[in-house]
Amino acid sequence: MSHHTAGIDILVSEVGPRDGLQSIPSIMPTEAKKAWISAAADAGLREIEVGSFVPAKLLPQLADTAEIVAHAKTIPGLTVAVLVPNARGAEAAIAAGADKITLPLSVSETHSLANLRRTHEQVIDEAVSIAGLIRAQPANHRPHFEGSLSTVFGCTLEGAIPDAQIARLAAALMDAGCDEVGLSDTTGYADPSAVKRLITLVRNVVGDAALTGIHLHNTRGLGLANALAALEAGLTTLDSSLGGIGGCPFAPGASGNIVTEDLVFMLEAMGLRTGIDIERLLKVREIVSAALPDEDMYGFLPDAGLPLGFAPPKQMEYV
Amino acid sequence: MSHHTAGIDILVSEVGPRDGLQSIPSIMPTEAKKAWISAAADAGLREIEVGSFVPAKLLPQLADTAEIVAHAKTIPGLTVAVLVPNARGAEAAIAAGADKITLPLSVSETHSLANLRRTHEQVIDEAVSIAGLIRAQPANHRPHFEGSLSTVFGCTLEGAIPDAQIARLAAALMDAGCDEVGLSDTTGYADPSAVKRLITLVRNVVGDAALTGIHLHNTRGLGLANALAALEAGLTTLDSSLGGIGGCPFAPGASGNIVTEDLVFMLEAMGLRTGIDIERLLKVREIVSAALPDEDMYGFLPDAGLPLGFAPPKQMEYV
Repeated sequence: MSHHTAGIDILVSEVGPRDGLQSIPSIMPTEAKKAWISAAADAGLREIEVGSFVPAKLLPQLADTAEIVAHAKTIPGLTVAVLVPNARGAEAAIAAGADKITLPLSVSETHSLANLRRTHEQVIDEAVSIAGLIRAQPANHRPHFEGSLSTVFGCTLEGAIPDAQIARLAAALMDAGCDEVGLSDTTGYADPSAVKRLITLVRNVVGDAALTGIHLHNTRGLGLANALAALEAGLTTLDSSLGGIGGCPFAPGASGNIVTEDLVFMLEAMGLRTGIDIERLLKVREIVSAALPDEDMYGFLPDAGLPLGFAPPKQMEYV
Repeated sequence: MSHHTAGIDILVSEVGPRDGLQSIPSIMPTEAKKAWISAAADAGLREIEVGSFVPAKLLPQLADTAEIVAHAKTIPGLTVAVLVPNARGAEAAIAAGADKITLPLSVSETHSLANLRRTHEQVIDEAVSIAGLIRAQPANHRPHFEGSLSTVFGCTLEGAIPDAQIARLAAALMDAGCDEVGLSDTTGYADPSAVKRLITLVRNVVGDAALTGIHLHNTRGLGLANALAALEAGLTTLDSSLGGIGGCPFAPGASGNIVTEDLVFMLEAMGLRTGIDIERLLKVREIVSAALPDEDMYGFLPDAGLPLGFAPPKQMEYV
């Protein structure tokens, strides 16, 4: 969870510059990424996952992540998040000054080997090393450390993952020194019941305060219904991607993040404050589509527009 | 609500042959409509809105509704529903043998005048006449009569409609002799909070048993999230359209029914029994797309396919 959530009910964490850009063949110019991040922050986004510290030969789309972090760090009040696959990536993330570091751990070991080329035990060892690196920083320079349980709603290679395995890995991440864990529907297999069930399962292991966020895909159209289920279960951080770009390049057929524009519309319409100005958010699309002329952008709200006279109820309690 | 809901938790009411076909320029051949309805029933759908008794010059796409009703009535266990704009339409529906008659009443009077060319008072008068026609039938030939509150989540012409006006019109429909009322998000303005709020509002007026169904659009991407909210509020009948075709031709920019395939996937994944075989349902698309080569069909599940090893939990309680 972000450190900058004053005055908002739900933190929308924009993952487009990382999850979106890593999943498409086009490489966005560094200046366009900076313009995107600045415009998104201007529209009110408080947390942006700006890149990933992975070898440039694996993901050339994100080779400029250090420069992007440095730019994002100049924006007041923005939580600058990055993904890292291992301790080496975390070292670079800390050096660059990231506020939040996420290490994915695929609860499917088959997917873990395919995606991170590591067994569960090896990923947990990396988590231990990362926690050590963070503890070695001065107290006011320690990034928040999240372990993200990916393929937690099922894997395109293994199918369903046993609850006991998920619980064991959630506990192992916390024991390794993570500040919290997150849930990730890498494959778009989640449904609202499964979302609620797994939130309960993992919270019973790590405690309520150590599970606040979820990363959902819209692969089978249930993305916003799953987001609603997560809200109802008490989560307060939801990942999404502008224009819905991105997904997971190592889980075939699993593309499609939930669309930031549609998610923010749902939340604001429900009277949940995001701090985001929808009209300004819609304008951010122009920056992204101009810089990625060969990529499709998705979203229903951008096509349909806001309802006539739309004004979100102020601080209305969600019923 | 259908009379044929034994063994299922949620009734998915397919409205594609009516709402879908009335909203597109192509006219589907009568034989294709019959094949669609038969295949949908074979896949397990228990209620299908097969047409509308409106003048052929207004909706030539539905001019064969009497013949379609006659065909649908040969299918055992199927509730054959139709829409009517007035008592003349209801007379034709009764003569054809429809099991369920729905009269839309737009809670926005501006939209009512544009859509049905009638004031609220005139529509209520039609409801009184229709109830009289139904009462005059032998007891075992009386169709179920629903008054559908359309534009209830807001109107593209008027914006938000006052609660008191909605409550008054719901009561007036019941007083006129409707068996139940339904809610219809004609314009795609609904959000999950509004869904729950309006269900409570209308149930407080008509009683829980007289509001069981909702008609949602996916105009702004919230269709399935709104469906989830409706389920959680206790509704048991959800309208949807195969391939998401259709919407409201008289509410500009309001196209897009929720997609039957995606809805059924969500419900079954949640352990809610629909009685519908998803694999067979997906095959019904081939009939529709072959008969409507110029129309787009939507849906995420049809593109992504079922999750690996997908088997809905049996009679699992929704958490």
